[in-house]
Amino acid sequence: MSAQGGHRVVVVGGGFAGVQAVRALRGAPVEVTLVDRNNYHLFQPLSYQVATGALSPAEIAEPLRMIFRRQANVRVVLAEVTGLDLEGRAVVAQPRAGDGESLTLPYDTLVVAGGSAYSYFGHEEWRPFALEVKTLDSAVHVRGRILKAFEAAELAGDAAARAAWLTFVVVGGGPTGVEMAGQIAELARDALPGDFRSVDPRAGRVLLVETADRVLTSLPSSLSARAQRSLEDLGVTPLTGHTVVGIEPAAVEVRDGGGKVERFDARTVVWAAGVTASPLAGILAEASGAQLDRAGRVTVGPDLTLPGHPEVLALGDMVRVGEEALPGLAPVAMQQGRYAGRLIGERLAGRSTPPFRYRDKGDLATIGRAQAVADLRRVRVGGLLAWVLWLAVHLVYLIGFENRVVVMIRWAYAFLTRNRGARLITEP
Amino acid sequence: MSAQGGHRVVVVGGGFAGVQAVRALRGAPVEVTLVDRNNYHLFQPLSYQVATGALSPAEIAEPLRMIFRRQANVRVVLAEVTGLDLEGRAVVAQPRAGDGESLTLPYDTLVVAGGSAYSYFGHEEWRPFALEVKTLDSAVHVRGRILKAFEAAELAGDAAARAAWLTFVVVGGGPTGVEMAGQIAELARDALPGDFRSVDPRAGRVLLVETADRVLTSLPSSLSARAQRSLEDLGVTPLTGHTVVGIEPAAVEVRDGGGKVERFDARTVVWAAGVTASPLAGILAEASGAQLDRAGRVTVGPDLTLPGHPEVLALGDMVRVGEEALPGLAPVAMQQGRYAGRLIGERLAGRSTPPFRYRDKGDLATIGRAQAVADLRRVRVGGLLAWVLWLAVHLVYLIGFENRVVVMIRWAYAFLTRNRGARLITEP
Repeated sequence: MSAQGGHRVVVVGGGFAGVQAVRALRGAPVEVTLVDRNNYHLFQPLSYQVATGALSPAEIAEPLRMIFRRQANVRVVLAEVTGLDLEGRAVVAQPRAGDGESLTLPYDTLVVAGGSAYSYFGHEEWRPFALEVKTLDSAVHVRGRILKAFEAAELAGDAAARAAWLTFVVVGGGPTGVEMAGQIAELARDALPGDFRSVDPRAGRVLLVETADRVLTSLPSSLSARAQRSLEDLGVTPLTGHTVVGIEPAAVEVRDGGGKVERFDARTVVWAAGVTASPLAGILAEASGAQLDRAGRVTVGPDLTLPGHPEVLALGDMVRVGEEALPGLAPVAMQQGRYAGRLIGERLAGRSTPPFRYRDKGDLATIGRAQAVADLRRVRVGGLLAWVLWLAVHLVYLIGFENRVVVMIRWAYAFLTRNRGARLITEP
Repeated sequence: MSAQGGHRVVVVGGGFAGVQAVRALRGAPVEVTLVDRNNYHLFQPLSYQVATGALSPAEIAEPLRMIFRRQANVRVVLAEVTGLDLEGRAVVAQPRAGDGESLTLPYDTLVVAGGSAYSYFGHEEWRPFALEVKTLDSAVHVRGRILKAFEAAELAGDAAARAAWLTFVVVGGGPTGVEMAGQIAELARDALPGDFRSVDPRAGRVLLVETADRVLTSLPSSLSARAQRSLEDLGVTPLTGHTVVGIEPAAVEVRDGGGKVERFDARTVVWAAGVTASPLAGILAEASGAQLDRAGRVTVGPDLTLPGHPEVLALGDMVRVGEEALPGLAPVAMQQGRYAGRLIGERLAGRSTPPFRYRDKGDLATIGRAQAVADLRRVRVGGLLAWVLWLAVHLVYLIGFENRVVVMIRWAYAFLTRNRGARLITEP
């Protein structure tokens, strides 16, 4: 208990895990401080739609202050966490606004949900040439880069230069890679033709490189095959069983299963392959002696607490629960967030909480217009039905009534016209 | 006539004047090249709504290629014009995408509509400390700066620092200044309270500095007085008869009519005062011997052609038609654009065109929720009626059906909830 009387909970990270943890503390006798480097919660599963001009940033991002304006026990701090002092029980953070003296936020209970970033498998030299759609700012940047590639093709002096500008390589056949590849192909095939005079955007090539022998490996192979057919119908070339071995400003080298290396002239590479946990996982591991796995995730106990530190919970993409590495998906993070918030409340009431258990409701991935796959464990569906399910789930989980209405209109418009309204090249 | 057979028209600038000129050339036996440094047409009169989180960038910007996709005689080039060669009849431009060799665009007729920028009356040293809402990128930047000021106030260590973060100075009492001041006040008074814990956004001060003795000097004084009362009701302090004499990172100095200088601690200054024409006006003047006025505008003839160069038309904010300096408003630019397009078509048909004449349909300015003023020359109205008229006119002139629908929803939502959906701090 703090001097002020309230039990101080600091939550690091306003992603799915952090937001759900704070929400679950509604009504608990605590003072919550939520720290994030951005002033908004990003609905990350739709950021690829920003990157391809289908939606606008504000449509998939809700200001954290707006989410918690009516939850009186929460204060939001716009700051980047720079240190965790587990001994002194305080978070050190650098404000993102103002004159910037660093802040010390003392806690009685700490919840760390720092998320993850893309990893380049030790090839950091590829990072400058690859695009990512992890953050909102990066999604806006990717949108500009993809649109500029078509602009450059329109002005290109010869056929080879034009072809390189019209070749897009997406690395990683997970949900993000599949969605990006599908959306770039749709942009080239449906939205842009008619807009250009010298070049036909439909001549664009989209290569999807995946080391495994199929895309969407978390799904049953029948759905992978279906997704792959949908991608091919859209004009994507899936290169399964292939591994990227080189990325340069204007070319990508890909090795096939037999060891043969092929070089593709391509000016646009989107990276959607391996992820690595937030550096906060490393700080927690070092301070507590907890294990870090190869993906940089810290191992927490079955109640999501750090070994030896029952007052510290870690959740989301940056943790491994015991032996179990759960997938880095929004439902996992949300369930862990709700669990963490409830556990803190129960603990203050003197009650114990059973271990965290992930309730897997299934997997969904969308490929393009009216094309998706859904594995609901008991039922597997593809095509229009899966797509409608995908639409409904995403609209329900999107935060903010206004955003839901606007996104619904954008999607209806895109469905009817095959066009995309947010095709802006912005680059302050 | 060019070798290809078509009469080549190059239009520089995709603002109101340029877009209307190109549209008016629909069906004319010409090959139009529209050059702009952005890939979109900006509905500039609403950019202050982006700067205050009411609308998203894509809602007030339409890709130029989308506007002209069905006009087959137009090609769009994404490039920054770097030179005009009137002797050789060519425009030199640097592409904004690709490997960037500079382009030469030959023309038979040239239309220059380069617009204007803010001027600091010779005080260029103020520019780094002042914010502008002229371009879309700058509006997004201002949005981040205004929202960050409240974030910084929330974390400020003492009352004086907090007050400086909560003091906003808007320089210039024209439509943009009045709208910005009103919107910042509404943001502080209606949208943000409840969002913060340490600070009350309603404690924010908005000062509107105008050298003249009233705001909106282009309107009759009765409407100026009404606008001023509405501003005061919103909590804005209009400092009419005051002149800014100094801008520093954390303070603004203002001199009153009696010569007394007052210093205000303020961390956010929005500049909406004098404008200066695009540098293209200077290039045209130098090449042709035409006059430049004090605001950098080139003087064109009654048919908008450059003296001695009937094949060159200049229009919009960057020109002065003979002795007449028309206001830098969208309707003037649009009418001049339509005139220029028609004149080119008529000329090719061997017909002459009477001189350009501006049909002034009136002035509109909005202050805030249900508050606006309208001078329709015969009728002058204020309050709700003027506001509804303002809404209707802006929705009608906004380009793109989808944007109209989305903006209407955003406005309805803002009206009902007094909130704003696009309150993102984004800063790549």
